[in-house]
Amino acid sequence: MTTSKGLEGVIVAETDISSIVGDQLTYVGYTIDDLAENALFEEVVFLLWHKRLPKQDELTEFSEKLFSAMTISDDIFNHLEMMVKNEATPMDVLRTAVSLLGVYDTQNNYTDETINFERAIYLQGQMAAIITTYSRLRENQELVTPKKTYTYAENFLHMLNGTDITPLESEAFNKALVLHADHELNASTFTSRVCVATLSDLYSGMTSAIGALKGPLHGGANEQVINMLMEIQEVDQAIPYIKEKIANKEKIMGMGHRVYKSGDPRAKHLKDMSKKLTSKVGQEKWYQMSEKIESYIKEHKGLPANVDFYSASVYHSMGIKHDLFTPIFAMSRTSGWVAHMLEQYRNNRLIRPRAEYVGPTDQSYKPIHER
Amino acid sequence: MTTSKGLEGVIVAETDISSIVGDQLTYVGYTIDDLAENALFEEVVFLLWHKRLPKQDELTEFSEKLFSAMTISDDIFNHLEMMVKNEATPMDVLRTAVSLLGVYDTQNNYTDETINFERAIYLQGQMAAIITTYSRLRENQELVTPKKTYTYAENFLHMLNGTDITPLESEAFNKALVLHADHELNASTFTSRVCVATLSDLYSGMTSAIGALKGPLHGGANEQVINMLMEIQEVDQAIPYIKEKIANKEKIMGMGHRVYKSGDPRAKHLKDMSKKLTSKVGQEKWYQMSEKIESYIKEHKGLPANVDFYSASVYHSMGIKHDLFTPIFAMSRTSGWVAHMLEQYRNNRLIRPRAEYVGPTDQSYKPIHER
Repeated sequence: MTTSKGLEGVIVAETDISSIVGDQLTYVGYTIDDLAENALFEEVVFLLWHKRLPKQDELTEFSEKLFSAMTISDDIFNHLEMMVKNEATPMDVLRTAVSLLGVYDTQNNYTDETINFERAIYLQGQMAAIITTYSRLRENQELVTPKKTYTYAENFLHMLNGTDITPLESEAFNKALVLHADHELNASTFTSRVCVATLSDLYSGMTSAIGALKGPLHGGANEQVINMLMEIQEVDQAIPYIKEKIANKEKIMGMGHRVYKSGDPRAKHLKDMSKKLTSKVGQEKWYQMSEKIESYIKEHKGLPANVDFYSASVYHSMGIKHDLFTPIFAMSRTSGWVAHMLEQYRNNRLIRPRAEYVGPTDQSYKPIHER
Repeated sequence: MTTSKGLEGVIVAETDISSIVGDQLTYVGYTIDDLAENALFEEVVFLLWHKRLPKQDELTEFSEKLFSAMTISDDIFNHLEMMVKNEATPMDVLRTAVSLLGVYDTQNNYTDETINFERAIYLQGQMAAIITTYSRLRENQELVTPKKTYTYAENFLHMLNGTDITPLESEAFNKALVLHADHELNASTFTSRVCVATLSDLYSGMTSAIGALKGPLHGGANEQVINMLMEIQEVDQAIPYIKEKIANKEKIMGMGHRVYKSGDPRAKHLKDMSKKLTSKVGQEKWYQMSEKIESYIKEHKGLPANVDFYSASVYHSMGIKHDLFTPIFAMSRTSGWVAHMLEQYRNNRLIRPRAEYVGPTDQSYKPIHER
């Protein structure tokens, strides 16, 4: 038998969704640079699910369905309202709310691909509805309904903040969603595939993926980056702060990647957006301090910035609460999770590895008073 | 790189929890036969978590804590009440309710093992509380409080049915819980380990495991066995029914196992209990038809019965609703899930395999009207 802790270097599936070769990430053969520069998030979702970019009429229909799925039901609203009273953590709320979507879908068992494609659009829309509804509820704000003329990225920001969306915000947030949409067999995606390989349903797979993404070694990283920037506060404190962290052998979040060794191809797009957005809102310091940290870590530890690093200052500049960074990652990655679960169903095999037993052997039960 | 679809034969972890060697299953070196004959489920839970059987004072303290954790909170009760109105599926409710436990645990992030051990007892107790509360609610029955003098197995049946528990029921249900407690890296356990290897919390791992167990290729099997028995209805119809299934190339549930080739060591204990219980309640036919099916499939397909096969008639004879069979499996397996998650935390490495990309390459974005 092969032994591999962490399954590093073990191939568990064939895929036609995304690919990482060297330091290039592609979705269905399109480079992430090409898509980040040109594509709407909606087009990328369609691409990941159907393996081609949509024609105009297909995109129109897809966007309309997505728009219709962005409204919260009374049932989910009532549950969310109860959770708000408890000041719950957004990722826990999101995991629970998606699980609830399964409870309220009376035909929620895995069935055929046609139903799952509709359910996928519903899930993608509901992710935006759940996050924004929960955020508005806990701030005691009225809910904001989505606009038909807005893109998915614009509607999320609109429903979250209640404002009109500027072209720069639209561009930055759309890019962030495109860049986070898929990433081969990352830990949350793999969790969802292991889960649904029992032929469990999409809601179960989504719930498990959200649970995995919550972990600080995975989706939790961008929130930790912004926490670090907040602690630093001033540009001239960045290097002293980092030096102390390194001296204390603490990890600097947002740096390095298990798969990309010489650089995460997604980082530069968010770096560019971070520069523009922080400047627009007169908070250049977040960008400047990020850049200083990036240079220092690259020089002294050989680690380049990853996708989490600049997404922190991008989201912060758009006025997004820090504990929503990971839920937004989940909203984007929903497109990839669904694509991978549908792929798993199409060519399924239960995922059931083995463990090597290293504990005691040949024990015999003794009555309790003889122990 | 190694390629293994389904990870068959790939070792992903060292473990000292359970072991499958040949056709023998052991928990911490005790054979499943030894434990099924002698141990209380509480002792087995303690064994899986602490790697030794408890002394008397330890068992007393452990049982008291478990007892205290078997009461539902007002918050979870209110959420469950809302779900009942929708006639939700118990496994979806269970997945959601466990996710809610995380929402209402204000210190729910992964921290240290001491906290996680307390949380583990809480989870083990709450599983019984959630399943029985939901069941009573949907039947419009008053909730039943647990008795201090009862074991975990007895209290579950008492809280579910509101009756006093006979010695045979106690023995059978305790055995069923012991036999389902752990099973190395089965699909749901592996899901939970992949999930928490991101350092996500126990609630997230539990939620993902419940989602995986729901799948018909995993925990859903015992419910499908009872559905089959119900369809057959009469003993003399068993063989004709099975012959037709085989002729139609349909799968017979509860037979064979990926890991055990010559027989599931857990099946015989439940077979024995099935014989006694069905006789006690005057419904021998379920046992008799099960035995006929088992013999036929063994002879004609070479597949022996697995743990799911006789658990179906055991649970049915105790008056348990069929859609609670898989939730009961989850309740028992909680002990193993937790043991494995704690083991993952202790010696963690992110579980992140690779996929082989087989899709199109070198594509370029075209404006939508040129597609």
